[in-house]
Amino acid sequence: MSTASVVSDEVQLARAYLSRVAEPASLAIWEFVSAYGPVVAAAAIRRGQVPAPVATLTAARRRCDPYADLEAAAHHGIRLISPESPDWPHLAIGALERVALDICARGQRLTSSERYGGEPAPPLALWVKGTGEVSSLGVRGAAIVGARSATAYGEHVAALFGYGLAAKGITVVSGGAYGIDAAAHRAALGAGGATVIVSAGGIDHPYPPGNARLYEQAADGGLVISESPPGSAPHRHRFLSRNRLIASLSTGTVVVEAAVRSGALNTAAHCVTVGRPLMVVPGPVTSALSTGCHRLLRREDYRALLVESVDDVLAVVAGIGEAGDDAGAAGSGETGDTGGPGSDGVRRALEQLDPVARRVFEGLASRTWRTEDQIATTAGIGLVEVLRALPALRLAGLTESDDQGHRLSRGARERR
Amino acid sequence: MSTASVVSDEVQLARAYLSRVAEPASLAIWEFVSAYGPVVAAAAIRRGQVPAPVATLTAARRRCDPYADLEAAAHHGIRLISPESPDWPHLAIGALERVALDICARGQRLTSSERYGGEPAPPLALWVKGTGEVSSLGVRGAAIVGARSATAYGEHVAALFGYGLAAKGITVVSGGAYGIDAAAHRAALGAGGATVIVSAGGIDHPYPPGNARLYEQAADGGLVISESPPGSAPHRHRFLSRNRLIASLSTGTVVVEAAVRSGALNTAAHCVTVGRPLMVVPGPVTSALSTGCHRLLRREDYRALLVESVDDVLAVVAGIGEAGDDAGAAGSGETGDTGGPGSDGVRRALEQLDPVARRVFEGLASRTWRTEDQIATTAGIGLVEVLRALPALRLAGLTESDDQGHRLSRGARERR
Repeated sequence: MSTASVVSDEVQLARAYLSRVAEPASLAIWEFVSAYGPVVAAAAIRRGQVPAPVATLTAARRRCDPYADLEAAAHHGIRLISPESPDWPHLAIGALERVALDICARGQRLTSSERYGGEPAPPLALWVKGTGEVSSLGVRGAAIVGARSATAYGEHVAALFGYGLAAKGITVVSGGAYGIDAAAHRAALGAGGATVIVSAGGIDHPYPPGNARLYEQAADGGLVISESPPGSAPHRHRFLSRNRLIASLSTGTVVVEAAVRSGALNTAAHCVTVGRPLMVVPGPVTSALSTGCHRLLRREDYRALLVESVDDVLAVVAGIGEAGDDAGAAGSGETGDTGGPGSDGVRRALEQLDPVARRVFEGLASRTWRTEDQIATTAGIGLVEVLRALPALRLAGLTESDDQGHRLSRGARERR
Repeated sequence: MSTASVVSDEVQLARAYLSRVAEPASLAIWEFVSAYGPVVAAAAIRRGQVPAPVATLTAARRRCDPYADLEAAAHHGIRLISPESPDWPHLAIGALERVALDICARGQRLTSSERYGGEPAPPLALWVKGTGEVSSLGVRGAAIVGARSATAYGEHVAALFGYGLAAKGITVVSGGAYGIDAAAHRAALGAGGATVIVSAGGIDHPYPPGNARLYEQAADGGLVISESPPGSAPHRHRFLSRNRLIASLSTGTVVVEAAVRSGALNTAAHCVTVGRPLMVVPGPVTSALSTGCHRLLRREDYRALLVESVDDVLAVVAGIGEAGDDAGAAGSGETGDTGGPGSDGVRRALEQLDPVARRVFEGLASRTWRTEDQIATTAGIGLVEVLRALPALRLAGLTESDDQGHRLSRGARERR
């Protein structure tokens, strides 16, 4: 394995053991390992000489065999990244560490939202496959998550975002599931960008099996990551604890579509817990697959950002000033609701008029010439004001004048 | 006219004159009239013996004829409601009065948002047609506004809201335009409810003419209201100042669909200015007709509420506790994202499990019987915990037990 030269075999073996002996996302285990170091902690757990909370969580599998896991991993081209490795994504995991330290300092009394989907404990190690860079995870990365049973709208937006972000050098992180996840991963790959699948089970068994090819493609240039060793089944609680990794391995999380019970809401909760910006795509209120998104937007404590376009997401996950103008923003174009495309100059001119000049403008007719007096009467404004405003209107191309009086210019007629 | 017996002819005549002599939404005029009373103010304006700001705004039409307007109104079944009348909607207009007084106290230095679409001055009088009650406007009323060139989605939601709110006794207020406005008005009428059209021009000339029948239907049981006298053309600035009346004559405003330059955004700004709750319906980010809505939701200073259903709006505009359960909420139903309709009991049971019991549940197989030891190993949890958790799981109907061991119940199998 690539980090063997810097991380001792003893530590690697201990980390492999720790990642197998307990289910992920336990603060008690993480705190114990932090206190004693992986080698001492692993040995103590194996002997069963540990505090009761740790014993409860490790008793069933304390005789597990880390050699077998490391061998299976090597066989599948999977490497184990330990916190002791220079490849460890410190920036990304640091967010979880801060939360964990804070909770431990409070005496491990978790609120219900903190417990939702496991505790916000940092992973004890990461099993990784692929050629992407692990250490820089959390920098310029966007998680794009959402419903498996996505609608065409959701998949369209996920693909739009995945492609646009990857084209701007943003790593697209998701869970490798059907629906939103797959649409985002595939679009990122289509843009020639890097994508990261964070798997709930062991990465030797892609889940769902139908996305096995997607796992391979992600590993080629990107990464597939799991905190569970090879052979682990994707149990429900592993999905939930996995979601905290999706949130912390990204600069921000975008929820594209989610029903009221979607796992994406769990990822959103983790995102908020680790202090990353949460972005949410709204949708039709008639679509049950957007109900969860709207619920997130309504939660004041989440401070979720409503995002509509790639540029909106870039503004959050890229460095300041990096958001491009040409990133294929969805729905940010102006519309034909008022005025045609050719009337922009007129529209801008109208916007810049002060209220009196605007009222004078309204007192003009389209084709009939009106005298200053007539304009004053029609607009309900003083003659002096009319005489003062007319030159500016003419200069702005809004009116034409004649010895018969004044009327709207052709551009302004089309506008009105 | 119905209020002639309590409001003197002199006052009615002065109010009719004032509503004609100046364009709506002028703080200078309103302040002048407030200071001197309508009769003295009208006489002074007619003589031209007024301060310069008032003179500027009234000079052009100071010789106008209020008798003619009152006659034309009577001819069309339109009555003039003055602030001196018991029918005056004090509660609704009070919001504008507070804003106007506050601005006047600050010396009339308006911010640009306060000026957008005229100043937030109370109307000097209201021209009204219809059998609805004027005095109670602002109580249990919802403005439903949006784009004229609405999409099928927008019109669907407007109709859903208009119908559902009217069925709950909420008055639906809008501008009588095509698109969202008309859909909301028509649906309210369809529910047998009252609707109020606030018109930008004189109400003897319905605008757009294609909605003339809608104006008639609204007047039958509801109201058509304008602050401009009969014969007034619907100039652009009158639309904008009209929007402040829509906002203040309702308990809250719902923007259903709006492009980035929609007039509905102006109504939303007025709603915020008068301190009423602003509600916004989100839509697909791929629809330009929802872009304005999303922009409103993103404005932190607006504190707009994202609404999805009739119940959401009822919670805001009806009294506390009045929001019904059966009001045809759009999109608030649960979805098939996880679990079928028959699995609600199982889902609820699962939600109530503590983390340890949930993990035990995950350690069970669908059809294979597992011993307590096997469950402990699979779930990665202590045997004692497994033995403690199993009875609760069985009571909740999640598991079945046998002398061979334990496995998921049929309901839980379907759920997983």
